[in-house]
Amino acid sequence: MTVKLVVLYTQPADSAAFDEHYLGIHVPLVHKIPGLQRFEAGKITAALDGGEQTFYRIAELYFADQAAMDAAFGSSEGAATAADYGQIAPPGSRMFVEIVDG
Amino acid sequence: MTVKLVVLYTQPADSAAFDEHYLGIHVPLVHKIPGLQRFEAGKITAALDGGEQTFYRIAELYFADQAAMDAAFGSSEGAATAADYGQIAPPGSRMFVEIVDG
Repeated sequence: MTVKLVVLYTQPADSAAFDEHYLGIHVPLVHKIPGLQRFEAGKITAALDGGEQTFYRIAELYFADQAAMDAAFGSSEGAATAADYGQIAPPGSRMFVEIVDG
Repeated sequence: MTVKLVVLYTQPADSAAFDEHYLGIHVPLVHKIPGLQRFEAGKITAALDGGEQTFYRIAELYFADQAAMDAAFGSSEGAATAADYGQIAPPGSRMFVEIVDG
């Protein structure tokens, strides 16, 4: 039963500065999180529903189960990643837990 | 350069009825779409940011590139899936294109 942390980043004021911090500092922190099974991230390029392009980036962190995710964010590496998220996430960014269909 | 269609379904009025249609009819239609490389879907169980649990489900359809995605939704199978999406997606559901970081 795979569990994912899904992060939806809203549009940053300065996307070049955001990407520099995100790719250079934040993603390396994510990869240090214990129990992380897979990381996938990317840029939103279009809203297909005719609505606003609300989000700039999506990031997905995969864990074996909820306990592994809880342990991950209880670790010092998880805390460092969360603190850095607080530095970079534009207002209105969202963070959800998803249980992947088995 | 993987391209994903990311669908965020808002909370349905009747989640049991939604799941019955989604899993029984919609997902089988998705799997018929030509060029689909991977499909991943799951249920949102929590909002970790203290905000509203805006979304009920996330679905991600992976394609080799933008041209493959365009061809997929230009096909009759893609059109059938899009029509069925129109039947089930609760108001406010969102649909984005994401280019996965290489």
